[in-house]
Amino acid sequence: MEAHVVREGTPQADDVAPDDVGRAVAGLSAGSWLWVDTVNPTPDELATLQSELGLHPLAVEDVQHRDQRAKLEPYPGHLFAVLRPLSIGQHGLAESELFLLASETFLVTLRFDPECDLSAAIKRWPVLAKLVPGTGSALYAIADEIVDDYMEVVEHLEEKADTLEGRVFGAIDRGSDKSVHLQKSILRLRRDAVRLRRHAVPMRQALDRLADDSPLMEERLVPYIRDLTDHLLRTIELNDGVREVLTTIVDIRMTQSANQLNEVMKKLTAWAGIVLVPTLIAGIYGMNFDHMPELHSTLGYPLALALMAISGVVLYLNFRKRGWL
Amino acid sequence: MEAHVVREGTPQADDVAPDDVGRAVAGLSAGSWLWVDTVNPTPDELATLQSELGLHPLAVEDVQHRDQRAKLEPYPGHLFAVLRPLSIGQHGLAESELFLLASETFLVTLRFDPECDLSAAIKRWPVLAKLVPGTGSALYAIADEIVDDYMEVVEHLEEKADTLEGRVFGAIDRGSDKSVHLQKSILRLRRDAVRLRRHAVPMRQALDRLADDSPLMEERLVPYIRDLTDHLLRTIELNDGVREVLTTIVDIRMTQSANQLNEVMKKLTAWAGIVLVPTLIAGIYGMNFDHMPELHSTLGYPLALALMAISGVVLYLNFRKRGWL
Amino acid sequence: MEAHVVREGTPQADDVAPDDVGRAVAGLSAGSWLWVDTVNPTPDELATLQSELGLHPLAVEDVQHRDQRAKLEPYPGHLFAVLRPLSIGQHGLAESELFLLASETFLVTLRFDPECDLSAAIKRWPVLAKLVPGTGSALYAIADEIVDDYMEVVEHLEEKADTLEGRVFGAIDRGSDKSVHLQKSILRLRRDAVRLRRHAVPMRQALDRLADDSPLMEERLVPYIRDLTDHLLRTIELNDGVREVLTTIVDIRMTQSANQLNEVMKKLTAWAGIVLVPTLIAGIYGMNFDHMPELHSTLGYPLALALMAISGVVLYLNFRKRGWL
Amino acid sequence: MEAHVVREGTPQADDVAPDDVGRAVAGLSAGSWLWVDTVNPTPDELATLQSELGLHPLAVEDVQHRDQRAKLEPYPGHLFAVLRPLSIGQHGLAESELFLLASETFLVTLRFDPECDLSAAIKRWPVLAKLVPGTGSALYAIADEIVDDYMEVVEHLEEKADTLEGRVFGAIDRGSDKSVHLQKSILRLRRDAVRLRRHAVPMRQALDRLADDSPLMEERLVPYIRDLTDHLLRTIELNDGVREVLTTIVDIRMTQSANQLNEVMKKLTAWAGIVLVPTLIAGIYGMNFDHMPELHSTLGYPLALALMAISGVVLYLNFRKRGWL
Amino acid sequence: MEAHVVREGTPQADDVAPDDVGRAVAGLSAGSWLWVDTVNPTPDELATLQSELGLHPLAVEDVQHRDQRAKLEPYPGHLFAVLRPLSIGQHGLAESELFLLASETFLVTLRFDPECDLSAAIKRWPVLAKLVPGTGSALYAIADEIVDDYMEVVEHLEEKADTLEGRVFGAIDRGSDKSVHLQKSILRLRRDAVRLRRHAVPMRQALDRLADDSPLMEERLVPYIRDLTDHLLRTIELNDGVREVLTTIVDIRMTQSANQLNEVMKKLTAWAGIVLVPTLIAGIYGMNFDHMPELHSTLGYPLALALMAISGVVLYLNFRKRGWL
Repeated sequence: MEAHVVREGTPQADDVAPDDVGRAVAGLSAGSWLWVDTVNPTPDELATLQSELGLHPLAVEDVQHRDQRAKLEPYPGHLFAVLRPLSIGQHGLAESELFLLASETFLVTLRFDPECDLSAAIKRWPVLAKLVPGTGSALYAIADEIVDDYMEVVEHLEEKADTLEGRVFGAIDRGSDKSVHLQKSILRLRRDAVRLRRHAVPMRQALDRLADDSPLMEERLVPYIRDLTDHLLRTIELNDGVREVLTTIVDIRMTQSANQLNEVMKKLTAWAGIVLVPTLIAGIYGMNFDHMPELHSTLGYPLALALMAISGVVLYLNFRKRGWL
Repeated sequence: MEAHVVREGTPQADDVAPDDVGRAVAGLSAGSWLWVDTVNPTPDELATLQSELGLHPLAVEDVQHRDQRAKLEPYPGHLFAVLRPLSIGQHGLAESELFLLASETFLVTLRFDPECDLSAAIKRWPVLAKLVPGTGSALYAIADEIVDDYMEVVEHLEEKADTLEGRVFGAIDRGSDKSVHLQKSILRLRRDAVRLRRHAVPMRQALDRLADDSPLMEERLVPYIRDLTDHLLRTIELNDGVREVLTTIVDIRMTQSANQLNEVMKKLTAWAGIVLVPTLIAGIYGMNFDHMPELHSTLGYPLALALMAISGVVLYLNFRKRGWL
Repeated sequence: MEAHVVREGTPQADDVAPDDVGRAVAGLSAGSWLWVDTVNPTPDELATLQSELGLHPLAVEDVQHRDQRAKLEPYPGHLFAVLRPLSIGQHGLAESELFLLASETFLVTLRFDPECDLSAAIKRWPVLAKLVPGTGSALYAIADEIVDDYMEVVEHLEEKADTLEGRVFGAIDRGSDKSVHLQKSILRLRRDAVRLRRHAVPMRQALDRLADDSPLMEERLVPYIRDLTDHLLRTIELNDGVREVLTTIVDIRMTQSANQLNEVMKKLTAWAGIVLVPTLIAGIYGMNFDHMPELHSTLGYPLALALMAISGVVLYLNFRKRGWL
Repeated sequence: MEAHVVREGTPQADDVAPDDVGRAVAGLSAGSWLWVDTVNPTPDELATLQSELGLHPLAVEDVQHRDQRAKLEPYPGHLFAVLRPLSIGQHGLAESELFLLASETFLVTLRFDPECDLSAAIKRWPVLAKLVPGTGSALYAIADEIVDDYMEVVEHLEEKADTLEGRVFGAIDRGSDKSVHLQKSILRLRRDAVRLRRHAVPMRQALDRLADDSPLMEERLVPYIRDLTDHLLRTIELNDGVREVLTTIVDIRMTQSANQLNEVMKKLTAWAGIVLVPTLIAGIYGMNFDHMPELHSTLGYPLALALMAISGVVLYLNFRKRGWL
Repeated sequence: MEAHVVREGTPQADDVAPDDVGRAVAGLSAGSWLWVDTVNPTPDELATLQSELGLHPLAVEDVQHRDQRAKLEPYPGHLFAVLRPLSIGQHGLAESELFLLASETFLVTLRFDPECDLSAAIKRWPVLAKLVPGTGSALYAIADEIVDDYMEVVEHLEEKADTLEGRVFGAIDRGSDKSVHLQKSILRLRRDAVRLRRHAVPMRQALDRLADDSPLMEERLVPYIRDLTDHLLRTIELNDGVREVLTTIVDIRMTQSANQLNEVMKKLTAWAGIVLVPTLIAGIYGMNFDHMPELHSTLGYPLALALMAISGVVLYLNFRKRGWL
């Protein structure tokens, strides 16, 4: 756990000890605030923070339970926000958790594995602090980075959906194994899209609440929050587009599968039909009747072979014409 | 039926007789209230409670009819709540019923088989009573336990859906029996998800009403109720995810089924085609023409056999190349 | 047409003549009101009622047009309600129509074939009249009976859906006739569910309006109406469940159909394949080559038969292993 | 273009010249108003009307562009309404257009081919004028007729959907041509239902606006408009029912198609299987082994034939038992 | 970048230098305003405009990020609008971007490739300026042109959907290649429809905000904006119709595919069945029994051939009757 006094958006070098946080907040000069950051906080650390900063027990309980919906809850004395940073990991979407506790004098960021990276947001703090000092703009910077990550995630999903679409149209999958593989990819992508939606929609509600009735958000920050909401909405729309493309791919895949069966079965059956007629002719001249004049003709055998060949060719051409071959 | 005076959240040992409940409520000291609990109440017990505590006839009627939607109804003098505890039983989701009647001086809990367990909630009463005395926090504790059970149920459903998905991808079901079994499992799971939704959505409305306009809920309890609503929303979302996964599984199952038919039919028909050509050759040399020079050659027979074998191999390789085998 | 003065919820024995209705209303003593009931009213009767009681022309027009949505319309001087009682008849859902015209001094019930039964509601009038005198509680009793009938209808639909589900899983339908029969049953049930919904949803809106801004509904009746709305909502939810089950059944039926084709075709084709190989062997030994040593061996014939049998068995076992038989 | 002064709902015989319309409006006696009606108005006529009556340029522009959504727009000085009359023509639904411009002193009706018939509405004007004088009730009469036509259209669609359903269940379509024909009918009907919806839904919004904030609509007309809205809602619901039935028909048709394939293929393959076994037997006794005792027995031939027949019958009965034939 | 002073809706010939824009705005005479237009603005140009006109940093940031949702944002001192012009290009829908910044004294139009054409809108400026002077009506003209383009796009999509529908019904696609081509066309069209919707829906929200609370929009412009919204709504509805038609086409295509398989397989299998029976007969008379009386009859051979022919004909007629051929 690290705690720094933040002056004009810049965290100061001298650390504040965890059990000194309360006193540090009390002794802050005007325009500065305390930033406490920790990854995977222990119950002890949480308890220390709760008593030092007067955090609401429900907020602490939610942090302990983990896996919460994105939300913003104004408790007496401070704000509690749950954000769900997303990134693209090796096995698809990686869901992280970030809990924020903010008042006018402190900002606590509690991060959990897979640890979300706050450095980009912190770099923007000094610039934003000139515009709107206080923890509100710091909060905005963090939310903005997370929404930007959402956009990156959705672009990644779009790209993957495009690849899958290309594979569906281009590939001539023959074995069912490949089909299974394709299905798994579609299913995994769909799940990622569902999960993105599940985090983005409540996040939007949280941002709306932030813009509407949060005391930390000065008038000048409201357009920034609204801009954020717009980007989030765009993310959700693009994500819905990904889901629609996936549904279409599945439909097309099924039609293709049926068409392929159509073609192969038609061809095989047609070929079998072509072979059956010469077989019948051979059967006829294999009969043992005493009086079969053709059998005794010298040209009988070559004529029979020719008849077989002709019947085969006629059938072949006929089937071809009908589009069965 | 058991009735206890509750002091500082702790039910006292000395029982109150059922027909003494009214007098007990009248004689309560400040800060204490009466808790009446009964499992499968008889009509007589209900009538006694109604006259002793002045319960509204519609509330009593709803209890008698059973199988109600989760709801919260403020009647003059007391609150009436229907909650639907859920648990995972041997045959899927077990739906229970819990009726609550609460005023500032009493809390009546009417439970029906399968009996829901209140002990965890009761253990939390003393702690909550220190925070917010009165029946409101007791009510919250009960609702909180039920919502926690919902979360457990939805986690169970998620796990089952994952198992089914694994089976769909991993299993090489050959007999239709297994397919039927899988379908039944999917159907049962889908039903459980539908039922969970059917109870969770009205429960959320009831909680909203509780937070909004209930006189029992002091200001300090409102964030607790709101936290509860958040957890319930998360449950509903996860549950919707389960339903979506199930729909996907059914789709994939159907595609797989079609693909399997595709493969097997293709292979069988291809093999039949391979056998038909040598059969034709055999038929040709079985013809009885007088002049068939091959028949009299010593090498005729082995050459014919070789021709058959070659035609079979050529077809086999050809089919293989085209992906028909 | 029958008209009775109702005192304390009990219709009096002495009938009022149709063209005396206006005077009867004018001469009512406090706390009593006039009830006019008629089945399949003639245009003449409607005209008489309109002039005697000052009914609004649009109300009368709606009654004449029949087949209206459930609704509640407050006209100056009286309330106009359309209710759609439902029952289970021989050919599925039977839709009836009940028009109600109510003021503080009269209640007109116009019923159409198939005649809905009001006797159960009328029996409850005296009890309700003690609670809340006036036509409001009489109206509530009628609506309550109709909503109870809806619940019975939906329970009937649920039962039928369960039966169909059982048939889909249990039955080994072979002929397509049975399939057609099952499809018809599903279609009919789905239609009934759609029709129930079509009446229940506007009924709920009518009840909401009744609770909100009707002068006939005293404060004390409001919880009763709200309870009614809750039961109606439960009906709608259960009905939606029935529709979802039906959709699932249709899906499963289609998958089953495809699976059955899968199995039968696979088996037939496999058996055909098994027969083709011995046929080839027979064809080979039916060839007329001069030099076929096997033909002259004494063991040739039994060995050929054995070869056929072995090839058949080998194929059978192979196909079995692959799950094609 | 015809223009008449309307007194007590009755258009007077003496025509008003088109470029005299403005003066005619100015010189109206109390309680009368001017009705201008034209079919396929020319740009010149529109320009004349605009200058004479002071119509809003946007209204005129919308009339010129044609193909507008049903809507109601209050412009300063007059009301502008777009209505979309529907009727059943030879090629399915015929969409017409009717533009209405109304103030307290004039009502302009602009009709386009296929010309909608206003005569029924005009016949009701005198009666309605007694109730509520002015253009408001004349407007109501026109809208009422159009909504009645919608109801007729939806009843026509319902009838057609029933016929199609009957054909799907009753017909034993064999050729694909018939199937294509049925599909086209379904598609055309679905389109008609979609188009009806597309006109009915905005019409409802227009009626709502008319009832809510139109100065032409006196208090006494509001229930009439509300009644109209109810009928329109019923139309929309019935229309949605038609669409649901069509979806079901398509599903059933697909299942039927699959089932038919199922049956025919099963039968054909089974018959082929039955023929293959006697062919094998014939092949066996066609072999040329020297030592085949059966060949020399007098009963050999009939016994072989019997064996073939028996094998065929056994297979037939077996397949029958399994439901494959 | 070009900047012109606009007097009475007409851009004046004398250009204003980019870094003179601020002074030009300050020195405007009453009733005139400055129009700045640029295609693909460079960051430098944006920075100049921002400092000269006092643009909000978030607006500039959105312009730099590109690919924004259509929106309208009122910043202090000016309005910021994102519009998404659409046109039909060679490869389907071409999405453009147009950013508008407007105050009472200036209008900035920032366009990006594929450059949207503003000339039609600018031609209407002088006319509109007579009606409502100021930038508001100029803004309206631009939005109106874009909405008109939307309508053209949707009409193009409708036409293409009709063509596809015709192809599905008329074409006798035999090869799977054509099928793939058709599928790609459907998919591309569906995507275009989805993209149109994605731009049209937020555009409508932006227009609503413009009509509701924009200081630039005088009372007299509001009906114009509302008319625009109506056209946009009509576009969205027609577009939804296109999507529905596409869904139907895909369904029909799948049914057709299944039907085609049905027909071809049925015919091929039936023909194979017809050939198998004569083959059996030939096999019978190819048996080598000593005592086969038919073999020695002079008429044996022709009778056997006749029997084969008859069996074939009988089967053919039988299959025909059953609709299998």
